Amino acid sequence: MQRYKCVISYDGTYFSGYQIQPGKRTVQSEFETVLGKMHKGSHIKISASGRTDAGVHAKGQVIHFDSSLPIPEQKWRIALNSLLPDDISVLSVEKVNPDFHSRFDATGKEYRYFLYLSSNRNPFQRHFASHYPYPLDLDPIKEACQYLLGTHDFSSFCSAKTEIEDKVRTIETIDILEDDGVVTFRFIGNGFLYNMVRILVGTLLEVGSGNRKPEDVKEILAKADRRYAGKTAPAHGLYLWKVFY
Amino acid sequence: MQRYKCVISYDGTYFSGYQIQPGKRTVQSEFETVLGKMHKGSHIKISASGRTDAGVHAKGQVIHFDSSLPIPEQKWRIALNSLLPDDISVLSVEKVNPDFHSRFDATGKEYRYFLYLSSNRNPFQRHFASHYPYPLDLDPIKEACQYLLGTHDFSSFCSAKTEIEDKVRTIETIDILEDDGVVTFRFIGNGFLYNMVRILVGTLLEVGSGNRKPEDVKEILAKADRRYAGKTAPAHGLYLWKVFY
Repeated sequence: MQRYKCVISYDGTYFSGYQIQPGKRTVQSEFETVLGKMHKGSHIKISASGRTDAGVHAKGQVIHFDSSLPIPEQKWRIALNSLLPDDISVLSVEKVNPDFHSRFDATGKEYRYFLYLSSNRNPFQRHFASHYPYPLDLDPIKEACQYLLGTHDFSSFCSAKTEIEDKVRTIETIDILEDDGVVTFRFIGNGFLYNMVRILVGTLLEVGSGNRKPEDVKEILAKADRRYAGKTAPAHGLYLWKVFY
Repeated sequence: MQRYKCVISYDGTYFSGYQIQPGKRTVQSEFETVLGKMHKGSHIKISASGRTDAGVHAKGQVIHFDSSLPIPEQKWRIALNSLLPDDISVLSVEKVNPDFHSRFDATGKEYRYFLYLSSNRNPFQRHFASHYPYPLDLDPIKEACQYLLGTHDFSSFCSAKTEIEDKVRTIETIDILEDDGVVTFRFIGNGFLYNMVRILVGTLLEVGSGNRKPEDVKEILAKADRRYAGKTAPAHGLYLWKVFY
């Protein structure tokens, strides 16, 4: 039995998220169906670095699985891609030690959030960036980000549904770039809570539109209560960009 | 009655092309349905600068229509966008003289063709650029383009189905740019025949892969016969980019 680490990319538009759910089209179920075919019907479970929600994309999600098929390392990618639907692509497949774990060994993650700023809708961005047709000032957003950097209890920026107890996380980097009407938010941290990036972006948009002050973010963090933060930004602007090990 | 000129953009993925066809979802039928609603059921016909095929996109298609609705010029865009599906967007609406015609008054067009060069599939490009997983040399392609520039009989680069008699057209510009694995072909000319850009790209790809020599293009033009040119490149890499008046 050999363990494989796989970097995959997917367009989240037509998936009900990453994780398997009865009767739904998910990334995990599509991938496990393909592995099942390759293994003559045996079920091969895959494990990911974390789930992504319906509509959320992945540029570099990491999964692992075990197989005893005698396929050379460099042929795995081609074999998987030839059977996977065209909204999932395997970027690399690598042999790893049997104790490698895509989730437990991850030391950090990068997420990106794309915003399309224009009074006009853009049909080509409708699934790939969140459309924001109002004026937005990036300077107060950048100021607010200074309060988010570092180690904090992010309870206010986490879906109230979460069962995880420890909501302390460290954000190392937040970059905000504007290019040709597209604003990119880049978040790098040691881990992110459920809906955390989308609530951070939703709150930062309220700062950028003048409805909140940059310093409000400090207070929101201190409240440790989801009700004080802003709206959850739409799923289709979010990308799991990279997983660090 | 007032005539309006409209610049529209659409993602061609889920349309059976621009032109109305019974039982099919087309750009024209979606647009005319919306105009019908606005005009309390009266049918308002739209005319475009030209058709686009199933899967072909438009960044700046131009259409015109007549209406006697008392809507101020600057409200038309918003009114139309609020009723149109999200894969069509109206970029501008402008009052024009009643003798303006989107097709007959067009003096030129720009088409772009996008190629995604990589051994890996990219799920985000699958509807928006044609995937080319083989080695491609742009230098012989650029050389071949020199033979295409200017005024020629483009019969070899036109679907055999075309009924148009005069197949002489002028190509003013062909630019080829590579950026981060995406090759963009830019064609500007006074008019393009049915499938012309896709056959040009398909033929140029055979030159770039070494299967034909750049000079072959001169001979293909001289034959004035579709059978001598290369394959028709896939529809989803093609964009009607701009119409000139």
